[in-house]
Amino acid sequence: MRNIRLTVRYDGTAYHGWQIQKNAPTVQQTLEEAILSVTGETVRLVGCGRTDSGVHALAYVCNFKTKSALPCERLPHALNSRLPRDIVCIGAAEAEEAFHSKSSAIKKTYCYKISTDPFPDVFLNNRAWQYRYPLDFDAMRRAATHFVGTHDFVGFASSGMTVKTTVRTIYALELEKSGSLITVSVTGNGFLYNMVRIIVGTLVFVGAGKISPDDIPEIIRSGDRARAGITAPAEGLYLAEVFY
Amino acid sequence: MRNIRLTVRYDGTAYHGWQIQKNAPTVQQTLEEAILSVTGETVRLVGCGRTDSGVHALAYVCNFKTKSALPCERLPHALNSRLPRDIVCIGAAEAEEAFHSKSSAIKKTYCYKISTDPFPDVFLNNRAWQYRYPLDFDAMRRAATHFVGTHDFVGFASSGMTVKTTVRTIYALELEKSGSLITVSVTGNGFLYNMVRIIVGTLVFVGAGKISPDDIPEIIRSGDRARAGITAPAEGLYLAEVFY
Repeated sequence: MRNIRLTVRYDGTAYHGWQIQKNAPTVQQTLEEAILSVTGETVRLVGCGRTDSGVHALAYVCNFKTKSALPCERLPHALNSRLPRDIVCIGAAEAEEAFHSKSSAIKKTYCYKISTDPFPDVFLNNRAWQYRYPLDFDAMRRAATHFVGTHDFVGFASSGMTVKTTVRTIYALELEKSGSLITVSVTGNGFLYNMVRIIVGTLVFVGAGKISPDDIPEIIRSGDRARAGITAPAEGLYLAEVFY
Repeated sequence: MRNIRLTVRYDGTAYHGWQIQKNAPTVQQTLEEAILSVTGETVRLVGCGRTDSGVHALAYVCNFKTKSALPCERLPHALNSRLPRDIVCIGAAEAEEAFHSKSSAIKKTYCYKISTDPFPDVFLNNRAWQYRYPLDFDAMRRAATHFVGTHDFVGFASSGMTVKTTVRTIYALELEKSGSLITVSVTGNGFLYNMVRIIVGTLVFVGAGKISPDDIPEIIRSGDRARAGITAPAEGLYLAEVFY
């Protein structure tokens, strides 16, 4: 059996996340149907992780086993001709038999977009947190530095997880500003459920003056979800890159 | 009667352009209904120009006469609470009695977005020309310089116009590149029907090697629509700014 790795870009607005669900459209199901249509095979895609309803991807990675002889270079266009406009396959490659999109990943980068424009930006509907108030960007940047490193992020996770450990390493947490748009980029070896959105919500609380940047280390140490900021809305979140 | 000037941002995807039509949703009609709902008055909006189906605006300007006493600073939020998400009023101001959004305008800036990414960018669906092939950016920039100045642009217009003269002045025509996205910005004292889209189509033909940058002056002089490039699709075009 061949093991094929796909890279996929999608606008998650219309989907109930990546993972197959009953009675709700998901990215996984839509892709599996396109693969069935192209190869004639019913496959089970292995995804690099769940994404929530409304979360987007610049380069989601998934893989599947197949007996199809279709060359990888023809696969993206074959799939795209069958996929809806909001999901696009941007790459396909042969992977080693042991390759597993989720367990082989060593780190991931997410981006998060926040608009501070006082009026909604119609071109960012469903694609950013339209916060609409000014934020202290320098304070947010100072706060961000405290997240980098290896910490127990139990206070930055939503309940309902089944994980062995809540310790994660963040390699980089960077903020950029272009006009009224702030983009947060975070790279880590893994993220707890809603961890990126809670970090962003906390940075926004810092920008709004509700949390001091200097309090971040103690908030992390406390492990207390109530001391962090709110969970930022899903629509501003983009899975940007998966590293293997 | 007060004369109120509104500035409006809209995603034109769902609209048959600015101007009111029978049996098709337009931006003008949608805004007039919101004004009726806010002021109780049926007004007739004067727009700064027509925009075609699918064309967007970053700052469209229109004005209307009203007896309403509603302060301008409250008008945007009052309108936005009644407008659909793809139209947002971003400013309202008292204008002099003689102010007319169209005839008072002295120049306008349009932007046009072209994606050269070989795969569709799902986040630019309906918002850029997804050209999908490489373009020679330097050749396009050289070609652009030849459009600047006062010329008879009769060869860069679609038929069906009723204008006194086809002479227009272009003050600036600039191209920027960011990754696979090219943005064309053009400022002029006025534009013939489809003129911006035909200039962009011609620049893309230059980028694709179908027209030499050095041939632009002669193509303009010829006044021959057939020698220019195709009309670029509406969805990449944005009315960016109107100057008074």
